Amino acid sequence: MTKPLHFTAFQMLTPGDNGVWRDPQNIRNHLDLNYWIGQAQLLERAGFDAMFFADILGVFETRESGAELSVRDAHVFPLGDPFTLVSALAAATRSLGFVVTASTTYEPPFLLARRFSTLDHFTGGRIGWNIVTSYLDSAAANFGLTEQVTHADRYARADEYIEVLEKLWLQSWEADALRRDKASGVYADPAKVRAIDHRGAHYAVRGPHLVEPSPQGRPVYFQATASDTGFDFAIRHAEALYTNAGNPEQLKASIERLEGLARTAGRTARPLVFAGINLAIGASHAEAEEKLERQTRFRNDDSILAWNGIDIRRYPRDTRLSDLATYGTTRPLRSVNGRHDVTIQDYIEHTRRLRTPFTVLGTPDEVVDQIADLAARTGLDGFNISSATTPGVYEDFADHLTARLRARGLLAPPAATPIRLRDRLAPAGIR
Amino acid sequence: MTKPLHFTAFQMLTPGDNGVWRDPQNIRNHLDLNYWIGQAQLLERAGFDAMFFADILGVFETRESGAELSVRDAHVFPLGDPFTLVSALAAATRSLGFVVTASTTYEPPFLLARRFSTLDHFTGGRIGWNIVTSYLDSAAANFGLTEQVTHADRYARADEYIEVLEKLWLQSWEADALRRDKASGVYADPAKVRAIDHRGAHYAVRGPHLVEPSPQGRPVYFQATASDTGFDFAIRHAEALYTNAGNPEQLKASIERLEGLARTAGRTARPLVFAGINLAIGASHAEAEEKLERQTRFRNDDSILAWNGIDIRRYPRDTRLSDLATYGTTRPLRSVNGRHDVTIQDYIEHTRRLRTPFTVLGTPDEVVDQIADLAARTGLDGFNISSATTPGVYEDFADHLTARLRARGLLAPPAATPIRLRDRLAPAGIR
Repeated sequence: MTKPLHFTAFQMLTPGDNGVWRDPQNIRNHLDLNYWIGQAQLLERAGFDAMFFADILGVFETRESGAELSVRDAHVFPLGDPFTLVSALAAATRSLGFVVTASTTYEPPFLLARRFSTLDHFTGGRIGWNIVTSYLDSAAANFGLTEQVTHADRYARADEYIEVLEKLWLQSWEADALRRDKASGVYADPAKVRAIDHRGAHYAVRGPHLVEPSPQGRPVYFQATASDTGFDFAIRHAEALYTNAGNPEQLKASIERLEGLARTAGRTARPLVFAGINLAIGASHAEAEEKLERQTRFRNDDSILAWNGIDIRRYPRDTRLSDLATYGTTRPLRSVNGRHDVTIQDYIEHTRRLRTPFTVLGTPDEVVDQIADLAARTGLDGFNISSATTPGVYEDFADHLTARLRARGLLAPPAATPIRLRDRLAPAGIR
Repeated sequence: MTKPLHFTAFQMLTPGDNGVWRDPQNIRNHLDLNYWIGQAQLLERAGFDAMFFADILGVFETRESGAELSVRDAHVFPLGDPFTLVSALAAATRSLGFVVTASTTYEPPFLLARRFSTLDHFTGGRIGWNIVTSYLDSAAANFGLTEQVTHADRYARADEYIEVLEKLWLQSWEADALRRDKASGVYADPAKVRAIDHRGAHYAVRGPHLVEPSPQGRPVYFQATASDTGFDFAIRHAEALYTNAGNPEQLKASIERLEGLARTAGRTARPLVFAGINLAIGASHAEAEEKLERQTRFRNDDSILAWNGIDIRRYPRDTRLSDLATYGTTRPLRSVNGRHDVTIQDYIEHTRRLRTPFTVLGTPDEVVDQIADLAARTGLDGFNISSATTPGVYEDFADHLTARLRARGLLAPPAATPIRLRDRLAPAGIR
């Protein structure tokens, strides 16, 4: 039997990246609540499992020109707080999930625990957490740190951070603590609501948790990583993982490695694995080609390596990526399908063409075939899809893919009743 | 000419206080988004200026029995995160404001600055901030502190905290930095978006601010205090102030003192002053009496001094309040209309009767008269109104007071177009 795939929509509360906002047809308005409500309703209609809100807490700066490129091109800047958006979208939908990125490095765990619990209630159990440890120097500087804590330290802090949250979410209130018994006047049983008294290397939190147990108990845990440390962390915590690889064979190997790590750790199964794809759907193959080209037509080449802290205007275009060094971020330098022995010019052309082994392009039937094939070849459970501008890929997905995917058993039928995000994804248990 | 008064609705994301949730007619559901949307629409219809969300970050504990009373009676517990609610309510209303409490003591200022800016955009300029410095030991313990920072230290930190926020909100982006010019490809002018490079005694924050200037620039500043230190802080920062006093004459004197302080500090005028009233409206005076009585009928006496950390079950009812000491809070012990030389039993009876000089009770016309009279006698600009249960006071206000207040010029007419909260309140400038 074909296993239904999962789809999430990659979002940030920003005009876009690398100047794509300039497309004259683009009506995206990242600070307009009604714009977002329309997007959420579209994605629900399209059968997406969740909106996935990425986030960072600083600006992509380059060694050569600071924040100039990000400010000018609206390259992941400005960037609003995604948590503030969720309740409006939840009120306008009934089964769409909301995965929100939050860092374990900068915010007191007590506040984050309460926020997620409240949102899990307000969404009826449709909230997920994309766990990140932060990787930008420009973010660290906004929190009084002159430089980032090291990669390994950040993961150690993250482990304890999650330990604190889980004590609040899962241990502070016993399962039958909540009584709401008007006759006896007992709202909750004081013997079953407890302080957690956590005292660890990094955090001291007493509790009790301020919110009664929520529909999912805790948010669904997502993570995005491709590093070894990240994989180890994912095996300890993640229910779903976003990862990338140069090509499907490498991705298959990564997923197998994850399976092995999960077995070794005694997990029932590995996390669900999602990968990003570049998607373009047309009535004809040629129209799909034109749509893919349109996604990068208004991209500004200047800021394409701003992700890595490099202002390419200062270098000859035949400079090799291997001769450049990242700046202000712990992220590795981007490559072309896994190769670093390419020049800036090669990278620009590659970025413009959007042609990677994860580009899925064609008529609706062709695209469905390719999606099914990618999943079968790699073991992927789901796809993360961005849309550079609005209207864009999501409208095409809703109009042309949703029914076809369902007809082939590649997308779950619409939920008859509201459904919790964890029930919808049915990830393996972590422990 | 009569000056229109302002009305805010006191709210917390909690079942209530002192066990009032037990009223069999009560349909309040603090974790149901649709419940809150209904309340917001009701309050907008009633002509309220704003919902005022109070908040604390701990539990009211007593020296004698810890959190027992708060947990059992649902006494301001459980308690969700009010920020998560705003966007859903903003989408369902057009002119109602949302004042959210946030502490300057526990959260990194960079995060709070971004959250308020995002919400000011999403609400179209209808956000306010109730600035608190926190006063509960049980909250401090949730943030790794064994005891609270002192009252004076908290205000010093708060001054710097606000300084950081204002640098982010008002200085990081120049007024004409935002260009959004698709032709030139300039989203914002890099020369006009700057780091703030704040390095103070308590905070180091580099910036730039991640969100473009919002409709109001910054939230409207509210504060709630009656202490001298609090008044000084309010003169430095607040646009509106919630304060309490034993009787109208004392309140009038307080407001005059505030006026003097404002003049001395060179402010154009004092902050707007709001006070809480106990409101009950009936078709007859007798029905209003019955409604007032109903507000406390399901109150549990046991927890009435839990606010101050005292479990009255452990003391004879003739114990004087002056012989008790607060526990776990910097709040002064509650009194009866300013008097502490009363017993626990006196206090219980007083609390049950809800009869203070700020109780406004009667037929609609009587109530309008009393509200007008209270404002005239004290100089008050507005009233903060709670409703113990739902349905309750707000429905009566909308049905019976709104039109009458408007007919007398005591309530502004409905806004013809969406209006920003600061424009609606028109407070005096701080500087």
